[in-house]
Amino acid sequence: MVLSRKPLKGMRELTPGEKRIEDYIIKRLREAGVVYGFEEYETPVLEPLELFLAKSGSELAVEQSYNFTDKGGRKLIMRPELTPSLARMVAASGELIYPVKWMSFPVCYRYERPQRGRAREFMQFNLDILGVSGLEAELEVFLVLRRIMNSLNASPGRYVIRYSSRRLASEILESCGMTEEEMAQAFAVIDKKDKLEPDEWEELVRNRIKIERSADTVINFASCSDPNAPWLVEAAGGSEACDEIVRFSGMLRDAGISEAQFEASVVRGLDYYTGIVFEVMDTGGKNRRAICGGGRYDNLVGMFGGQKVTGVGFGLGLLTLELFLETYGLIPDSISGKHPADIFLAIYSDEERTFAVNLAENLRNVGVSVEIDITGKNLSKQFRVADRKSIGYIAIIGPEEVASGKITLKNMLSGTETECEVSEVLRMLRDRSLSGEAN
Amino acid sequence: MVLSRKPLKGMRELTPGEKRIEDYIIKRLREAGVVYGFEEYETPVLEPLELFLAKSGSELAVEQSYNFTDKGGRKLIMRPELTPSLARMVAASGELIYPVKWMSFPVCYRYERPQRGRAREFMQFNLDILGVSGLEAELEVFLVLRRIMNSLNASPGRYVIRYSSRRLASEILESCGMTEEEMAQAFAVIDKKDKLEPDEWEELVRNRIKIERSADTVINFASCSDPNAPWLVEAAGGSEACDEIVRFSGMLRDAGISEAQFEASVVRGLDYYTGIVFEVMDTGGKNRRAICGGGRYDNLVGMFGGQKVTGVGFGLGLLTLELFLETYGLIPDSISGKHPADIFLAIYSDEERTFAVNLAENLRNVGVSVEIDITGKNLSKQFRVADRKSIGYIAIIGPEEVASGKITLKNMLSGTETECEVSEVLRMLRDRSLSGEAN
Repeated sequence: MVLSRKPLKGMRELTPGEKRIEDYIIKRLREAGVVYGFEEYETPVLEPLELFLAKSGSELAVEQSYNFTDKGGRKLIMRPELTPSLARMVAASGELIYPVKWMSFPVCYRYERPQRGRAREFMQFNLDILGVSGLEAELEVFLVLRRIMNSLNASPGRYVIRYSSRRLASEILESCGMTEEEMAQAFAVIDKKDKLEPDEWEELVRNRIKIERSADTVINFASCSDPNAPWLVEAAGGSEACDEIVRFSGMLRDAGISEAQFEASVVRGLDYYTGIVFEVMDTGGKNRRAICGGGRYDNLVGMFGGQKVTGVGFGLGLLTLELFLETYGLIPDSISGKHPADIFLAIYSDEERTFAVNLAENLRNVGVSVEIDITGKNLSKQFRVADRKSIGYIAIIGPEEVASGKITLKNMLSGTETECEVSEVLRMLRDRSLSGEAN
Repeated sequence: MVLSRKPLKGMRELTPGEKRIEDYIIKRLREAGVVYGFEEYETPVLEPLELFLAKSGSELAVEQSYNFTDKGGRKLIMRPELTPSLARMVAASGELIYPVKWMSFPVCYRYERPQRGRAREFMQFNLDILGVSGLEAELEVFLVLRRIMNSLNASPGRYVIRYSSRRLASEILESCGMTEEEMAQAFAVIDKKDKLEPDEWEELVRNRIKIERSADTVINFASCSDPNAPWLVEAAGGSEACDEIVRFSGMLRDAGISEAQFEASVVRGLDYYTGIVFEVMDTGGKNRRAICGGGRYDNLVGMFGGQKVTGVGFGLGLLTLELFLETYGLIPDSISGKHPADIFLAIYSDEERTFAVNLAENLRNVGVSVEIDITGKNLSKQFRVADRKSIGYIAIIGPEEVASGKITLKNMLSGTETECEVSEVLRMLRDRSLSGEAN
């Protein structure tokens, strides 16, 4: 039998070059979290199905997920998102110090048709602040998002942090007499606004929401992109939710987060949001899927019993972020092609192997990455390997080098050769390598 | 309904303190790979069941695994190990530059009873050299293992790299007329040697291997711990496999790898090994499970068609390694308790918030990790948070600080206070933070 050479559709398989790009992004995300004092945690991929049924709703937990019964008869799910597991972990931890500021890089799974920016197996970056009821938490999360985009060289005009308020939306929809169920449907329709042409979307609203006044309200509300828009002030002015969004927009202005913009139509898909919701979008229209989505949730741990915990958090898809960066040429070319080795030691004959291995070990002891020949092939073939792997320096270890203790370093790019003592190689490469690490 | 607060048994859930320990270990493993020029790659968790049936055998792929049929009718497995996926990836890559030196940190899944050192969801470190037929590849892998243990402060006497040869074992078992099937059973029995008392084990051998001469051979062979042992020389002296193991033991001596020791009884569980096999063990007897297991495989990609690829590699369980380090007090206490923030900015009142946020952002711009109050609580409560999170420095931002541009830094450990210009805080903390990063 000849097996397939391809992974399953939508799965995450990364060659070293692709992994270097992901690592570059992960490093920036992690650094952004760390400078705000976020700590990393981890939860299982395999979870009880009931946890996600309770928290994510059955569409996500059943239809869009990988779920199955294990050999012990347990109904399991491969997590489609992280938040329910976070909730469980927080509920179980007795002595957390609030505010809890946690981040994680979960690999998640969804049984959906793979398409641009959407895979069946994907890595997210999740970041949450728990135990803070004030808007200062939202502000900090927006600061983190701005820092992430900045550190990846995305200029402020390239992306927007769009935000709205689930609470405000609920208030307004309630005011025209909608039931919970009708509101859920209205949210689903509002969520489609950016995926359709304006005419199509309006038609969809009027099709789905039969009461004309309600449909008008949905259309008017979803079209607001200013928290002080006359229609909005008229409809909700003075309400707590409206005051909150006006206050938040002022806080963003004070903190100079000009990338943030109110868009009433932002509702986000997940059921558990209760306050401000937000998403990061490409402004160029090239990537229609949100790079990141998040919001405030009122009671993270309710279903586990115990005290209420409020939170603000987001999930950011590494794939959508990478596509965004790729679209605008923001991934430095040097990253995917960079081989880790600083120097290649070519070996003249087996006689010099022990000397060469010792030299290599000494260099590695000071942090230099050394690739040494282990094939026993002739020198020209060894050179070819070093060249194809784009290793910056090469040195031949032959009888002369062993006898003299002197090495000739060849810069593979410039072709220049420098003869130096073995002790000097160490220093020369160490200096070079340490300065290189700053990248 | 009240949901369970516990993850499923045997799953991997890490609090920030536990994650910091894992990260410490991951960092050392990665660094060890990088200085030898290894590159990181990644493969999916979800794979076609047939890939593992073909490569890992049905015990691992069916009985000991999580496998299920997805909504599209595909038979899937959550990978119990990495090698079959590596094989697939190598077979699919047209233009690899040999020797390929790759590493990965897969999370793997096995449906087994969880016990000390064995979880159902676990992270491994995999490292492989492909395309090298000579023992130089094995030597390099042993060098990497020694470097890993060294970098984690495990002194040479604490662990041993035990090695043997599948080829030698096969040769000897064949010589007493065993069939393939009988040999597989003999391997399984040899594999149990260290898990039983010598008497018990001998009884097991004689129970399972009915022909007396064969049983004697198994017992004699498995008791050799010197490649030049008289029995072994008598039985296999001069054979290719015997020469190889003698040569390899000389190479290890030349390279000064005194941690390596020949133990004929090492066979390792996986089917696909064909040459030298090895494992890293605690010498203190406190941890009976191998920290790492590996070996040479002849033909990684055979079942995909195309050219043969030989390789040497290992899988190292992070959990067993961590237990080993824990047993001997080798995990620095400071790691799990270390909060990422360098400084906590307490805010006197909302008036100073914008000033404080700006200061915090400037500090973060130069890599300082700053936690700032976002609760709006009174100063003594803010201090309590900083104290409980063990953040090293604290500074209050009040009206005086805003007016003067001067900040008082309090060292939370010593209690000493230093007044300085805002511009100086930046420098002071940056110096401190950069020097701290060297750890």
